[in-house]
Amino acid sequence: MDIDLDSFSARDWEVPTDADPVRLAMVGLGWWTREQALPAVEDADHCATTVLVSSSTEKAEDVAADMEGIEGTLTYDEYADGAATDAYDAVYICTPNGLHRGHVEAAAAHDKAVLCEKPLGATVEDARATVDACREADVPLMVAYRLQTEPVARRARELIQNGAVGDVVSILGHMSDTILDAADETSWRFDPELAGGTTLNDIGIYPLNTIRFVLEEDPQAVYARTESEQPAYEGTDEHGAFQLEFPDGTLASCTVTHSATVTSSLRFVGTEGELTIEGLFFPNTRKVLRVSGPDIEGEFRPEPVDQMREEFDYFANYLQRGLDPEPDGEHGMVDMRAIEALYESAESGRRVELDA
Amino acid sequence: MDIDLDSFSARDWEVPTDADPVRLAMVGLGWWTREQALPAVEDADHCATTVLVSSSTEKAEDVAADMEGIEGTLTYDEYADGAATDAYDAVYICTPNGLHRGHVEAAAAHDKAVLCEKPLGATVEDARATVDACREADVPLMVAYRLQTEPVARRARELIQNGAVGDVVSILGHMSDTILDAADETSWRFDPELAGGTTLNDIGIYPLNTIRFVLEEDPQAVYARTESEQPAYEGTDEHGAFQLEFPDGTLASCTVTHSATVTSSLRFVGTEGELTIEGLFFPNTRKVLRVSGPDIEGEFRPEPVDQMREEFDYFANYLQRGLDPEPDGEHGMVDMRAIEALYESAESGRRVELDA
Repeated sequence: MDIDLDSFSARDWEVPTDADPVRLAMVGLGWWTREQALPAVEDADHCATTVLVSSSTEKAEDVAADMEGIEGTLTYDEYADGAATDAYDAVYICTPNGLHRGHVEAAAAHDKAVLCEKPLGATVEDARATVDACREADVPLMVAYRLQTEPVARRARELIQNGAVGDVVSILGHMSDTILDAADETSWRFDPELAGGTTLNDIGIYPLNTIRFVLEEDPQAVYARTESEQPAYEGTDEHGAFQLEFPDGTLASCTVTHSATVTSSLRFVGTEGELTIEGLFFPNTRKVLRVSGPDIEGEFRPEPVDQMREEFDYFANYLQRGLDPEPDGEHGMVDMRAIEALYESAESGRRVELDA
Repeated sequence: MDIDLDSFSARDWEVPTDADPVRLAMVGLGWWTREQALPAVEDADHCATTVLVSSSTEKAEDVAADMEGIEGTLTYDEYADGAATDAYDAVYICTPNGLHRGHVEAAAAHDKAVLCEKPLGATVEDARATVDACREADVPLMVAYRLQTEPVARRARELIQNGAVGDVVSILGHMSDTILDAADETSWRFDPELAGGTTLNDIGIYPLNTIRFVLEEDPQAVYARTESEQPAYEGTDEHGAFQLEFPDGTLASCTVTHSATVTSSLRFVGTEGELTIEGLFFPNTRKVLRVSGPDIEGEFRPEPVDQMREEFDYFANYLQRGLDPEPDGEHGMVDMRAIEALYESAESGRRVELDA
């Protein structure tokens, strides 16, 4: 088995350069940006935060007060108008899904590379316009699937692609958290216009995208069922279960919920073995990868990496080298269409085929 | 948490009696009976095999030649006609699903208690007639869900019912084996008339029934997708993925296949914790139960028990005490209707509701 498990968490994508660190404008200063993204960039090798963009100057200045190296604190309007464009090279967009489009279009207009949180938008149409804006302006657009630079997910993909478990036949995935501990009912996450859904889109996208990443295949058809118990979820989805059908007959079954203990897991069952990962989808938790197959048998508990730091450094290192970082906008569009189909299926109770 | 984990594998159902061991007629001498059931009964405390029933006297005599205590070797016709009824008290039926009915009806006519393999029949109609025959003759009918006497499944049920993980929200289940290593294409398992399906019914019933057992709830609606790759599976199902919806909104997602590595797993995610079991569904393999919740955290790797021996002793011990062993025929009918609905769903691509 030709996998470098000795350097499990090594950055297999990193290439040293003499280029300056990429200067980032952080667009949207909610809890994820403040608690995950800003500390990650502070630790990063290839990028630095130089501009903060928020709903008000005060909020941006409040956040800047605790940081070094901030050259600009902007409102969304000032950012859109092109203020301080000399002070940043690229943007990270972490706002309600339905507002991504406007912020990405502004970045494209300013000729800035974009790292946009997933899902790309609240609707397929919005996401399509977002991707097109970057293509027309010829600016790189990467969608922030941090699992794709998570070492455990990368080693899982190598193992699967190298046939460690034979041909993959069945896949199981789960992700859950308790979002109402972090957000109240007035959060944009419960507003269909701004979010495009609450659970299937917000955390269903983790197993969905990670399975695509590991298999290197896209689903052809889907089915979903959603349930809502608590009042905050009236008119949107609290729990979900969904199936994905892949071209070669591989079937994936997943469950997600915003109202259960914080846990996640992923299991690939193949003709000759099995690979499981515990704890994969959360940014700083211990991950355990177990694999058993004809040529490999073992359990790996690498030191957790900061997933956000890996993602930012990957994005920045690619830009430093003049390359377009992936997963790109078209990759993100596949998830947008799949999520739309999942909600359509949950509404109709029917399997929905995806156009190739 | 009020669970007796110290005596993890103790027989919580067993009550000593002075009664003689229950004498069993084994109906159907295929590989499962020869390799699993007969050795299990040989090890059992509360029963013994006294009669063997097969397609020919020669086959029955061949098997009897290696055993002690056999008082009768019968053909199916001789068994149906009531031969040697003085030599046995109860029957174990392990024939193709579509033939269960005739053998159970014969047992009922002879006033013998029945332990019938699952699923009860190849069709809901057949299974209904089977259950009715036992009720009308007033003979006990237990369906051979060996997981219900598997200590790991019983401890899982106690933990879940005692709230070890809070309210269960999401469930994932998987079972796979490589049936073509044990059976060739001419096996009854590939004949829809005799089997009623090949994978969803044959092994899908393990997660389906065990989830029902642990939750103490029955599904209200289901969805399934099946796939077939190898020629043996033309016109029937090789791989499957299915969802179960429970009354309180709990969603279960499962995968099963007869063409992958031998493995099984079950995961219950609750509002306050998680319980997983590896290796549960196979008769003699190592099981690992992991549970994490507010009042309990641990990993249990009890010595494997012989699931078939536990099942036979449970069945016999209940009969010795003059009690009707469960899971009974009506319990088995719930799975029959669910399996019928799974195949209907796989055919139509739609969610199917089950009548209460």
